[in-house]
Amino acid sequence: MKPLILISNDDGIQAQGIQELIKMLRPLGDLFVVAPDQARSGAAGSITSPLPITINTVTLENGLTVYACTGTPTDCVKLALDQLLVRRPNLVVAGINHGSNASINLHYSGTVGAAREGALHGIPSIAFSLCSEEVNEGDFIPMEEYVVHICQSILQEDIPFGTLLNVNFPPTSEYNGIRVCRMGYSAWENEFTATERPRGGRYYWLGGDHVDEEPEATDTDLNALQEGYIAVTPLKIDETDYELKQLMESWDL
Amino acid sequence: MKPLILISNDDGIQAQGIQELIKMLRPLGDLFVVAPDQARSGAAGSITSPLPITINTVTLENGLTVYACTGTPTDCVKLALDQLLVRRPNLVVAGINHGSNASINLHYSGTVGAAREGALHGIPSIAFSLCSEEVNEGDFIPMEEYVVHICQSILQEDIPFGTLLNVNFPPTSEYNGIRVCRMGYSAWENEFTATERPRGGRYYWLGGDHVDEEPEATDTDLNALQEGYIAVTPLKIDETDYELKQLMESWDL
Repeated sequence: MKPLILISNDDGIQAQGIQELIKMLRPLGDLFVVAPDQARSGAAGSITSPLPITINTVTLENGLTVYACTGTPTDCVKLALDQLLVRRPNLVVAGINHGSNASINLHYSGTVGAAREGALHGIPSIAFSLCSEEVNEGDFIPMEEYVVHICQSILQEDIPFGTLLNVNFPPTSEYNGIRVCRMGYSAWENEFTATERPRGGRYYWLGGDHVDEEPEATDTDLNALQEGYIAVTPLKIDETDYELKQLMESWDL
Repeated sequence: MKPLILISNDDGIQAQGIQELIKMLRPLGDLFVVAPDQARSGAAGSITSPLPITINTVTLENGLTVYACTGTPTDCVKLALDQLLVRRPNLVVAGINHGSNASINLHYSGTVGAAREGALHGIPSIAFSLCSEEVNEGDFIPMEEYVVHICQSILQEDIPFGTLLNVNFPPTSEYNGIRVCRMGYSAWENEFTATERPRGGRYYWLGGDHVDEEPEATDTDLNALQEGYIAVTPLKIDETDYELKQLMESWDL
C-alpha cells in the first residue's frame, strides 16, 4: 500500500507554501490535507475548545484529498486523525511555512504545533519552513529535492516515539547541505509598536527584532542557516528539565 | 525594593483562579497583572500578529496594577515586559488555571504559554493549575500556603535560565506533599464529537478522554497527582532531542 501522508500548515490552505508542498510530495504517496481556511500564523499548539469547528471539501482526487478547516493547525491534525482518516498516516508533514521557525520561534509556530500533534499521536512528523517572509513561487524550487529526500528518509528510517523534526531552509537558491542542529537561543527585542488611537488610547502591533543570543555557537539552527545549510532540529515532546529535576529534589519545597 | 511579580492566565481576567492568585501573592510584593479580557483556554504559546492588541485598565492601586488585554496569554506577558512595566519583574506567575496542565496538556496550555514566555525572557516563571474543571471559590483555599511557599522559594532559589515550573494541584483539600516529577506521556482519545448541522454537513466539538499512557510509572506528574501530591515539573524551553541529534548525525540526510 502507498504511504499515506497527512499535510497541514499555519499559513492557511491558500498559501503558496502548502500548495508547493503538495506538489512535491504527490509522487511519494496518497496525500490527505487538512489545513486552516485562513492564515493562522503564530497559532503555536493552540486548540479550539469553546466553539465547534467545521470543514469544507476543496479537492477529492485519486490520491489527493484536501479539506479547509475553521480550526487551528493543531485542530486540523487532531480532526484528521480522529474523524476524517480511515487509516493511520505514515507521516505528518506541516508547512512549508512562510518564515523562520528556527530557534525560539518554534514555540510560537502553528506549523511546529501541527507537526508536534502528529508526534503526540506517535506518528513521524516534520515541520518545514522557508526562512523568508517574502515568499515567491520560485523560492520553493531549490527546496524540492531536499524536502522529498528528508520525507523519504523518515518514511524509511522512522523517528523514535516522542520526537518531531523541525526543518528550516535558508532563503538561498543553493544550499551547502543539511546540518543536524540544536535549537539556538535567541530573543525578540522591541517587540511592539505602540500607535495612538484616533479616539484616544493606544494599540500595539507585534513585531520586533530577532537577535541571536549565541552568535559564537556552531551547533545551533541559527548558525547552520547563517552558513547556508538546511537546519534539521529534532524536538522532544517531553519538555522535562531532567537536570533541574534532580537538583530540585534537594530543595526545601 | 519589594519583589515585582507579573501575573497572567488563560482563563481570562474574570476567572476565579487569577483572582485567588492575586489575593495569595499580594503580601509577597508588588503585583502587575496583564491577563486576557476573555477566556483563552487552549491558547498554548500563540501570538497575535495580523492584528493589533489593546488594553483596558481594571485596577490601579498601590502595589496592584491590573490590565485586561485583547491578546493571548503570551501577548499579555510580551506586552507587559516590552511596553507596560518600568522595571524587570522578579517572577512571572500564570494561573491558577481551571483544569489540569499536567502531562501532554502543557503543549496546549495558554497558562504554560504565559509562563514559558517569562522564561524565554530569562525571568523565573511558574504556571499553577488546579486539576479540576469545576472550580469553586473554596477549592483554592488549601492551595494558598503551597502557592505562596513555592513562589517564595523561587524568589530565593531562582531557576536556571531556560527553565520554567509547571505546578499542578490535585483536586483535594489535603495534599500528601510536593513531588518533583517528569512530564508523563498521555493521550487524548475520541477527541471529537461530530454533530449534524441543521442545514446539512457536520460540526465537531473538541473534547475526548484523557488516558495515562504510563500507568505504572512512579516519577510522572500524573502519578504524583493520582497519589495526592502537588506535581512540580521543571520544563525546558530548549526542546532539542540531543539523543536523536547524535544518532541522526550518522543518517544519510
